Amino acid sequence: MEDCLFCKIIKGEIPCHKIYEDKKTIVFLDINPWSRGHCLILPKKHFRDILEIDAETLTHIILVVQKISVLVKEKLGVAGINILQNNNRIAGQGVDHIHFHVIPRYIDGSLKISHSTEYKGDDLEEVTKLLTESK
Amino acid sequence: MEDCLFCKIIKGEIPCHKIYEDKKTIVFLDINPWSRGHCLILPKKHFRDILEIDAETLTHIILVVQKISVLVKEKLGVAGINILQNNNRIAGQGVDHIHFHVIPRYIDGSLKISHSTEYKGDDLEEVTKLLTESK
Repeated sequence: MEDCLFCKIIKGEIPCHKIYEDKKTIVFLDINPWSRGHCLILPKKHFRDILEIDAETLTHIILVVQKISVLVKEKLGVAGINILQNNNRIAGQGVDHIHFHVIPRYIDGSLKISHSTEYKGDDLEEVTKLLTESK
Repeated sequence: MEDCLFCKIIKGEIPCHKIYEDKKTIVFLDINPWSRGHCLILPKKHFRDILEIDAETLTHIILVVQKISVLVKEKLGVAGINILQNNNRIAGQGVDHIHFHVIPRYIDGSLKISHSTEYKGDDLEEVTKLLTESK
């Protein structure tokens, strides 16, 4: 896609710290990393998000996410890993080309991830009904 | 696994708000939801984390994650979605049975997710070298 930052990186028009590449996938370091070894895994073909990506590409991508998780664990002495995939600006998606974050966590690492919410989950029965009823 | 909370839910020994089930997978609402429709997707077979799960189960699971993303989008008027998968206690994994979170985001929703870190990414060249060199 013409104006997509990640498509430009894939085409080599913008440099990146490339970690891995195969026919369908590219992996590079996040330029604004949350921790040491924070990688982005994305398909070379442009899909916007999890709703749009085809099954074949998605299943390939998640195996590369696993491969990169093993790699950072082995090479960087990682103690834990967060895998994060954000869809839409409101969810923190910064580039509209689907990507998975592999975020290493370290013993005594400085990264803190937190959340706050006012939702109490008082309507779990109702939500279950909504999500399980046929149309 | 005997003492695993999620294995007990899968066996029906502990109740859940079940959203979906197939041969390999179960999906239920998180009992401590971050937002309305916050679902957990997990394999029925016990694997600890992303490092341990087999490829066949992992690729199946991610397709169910996609299916549930489509479902919450259609049924709950979701504006965005975070997909999160935590590995190890240090990364926020609460139950040692691999699970993916599908976390809906809403226009004017109260959920805030934030992070802080002291890591500046000053060593991206070095990290790239570490992650790409052969052993």
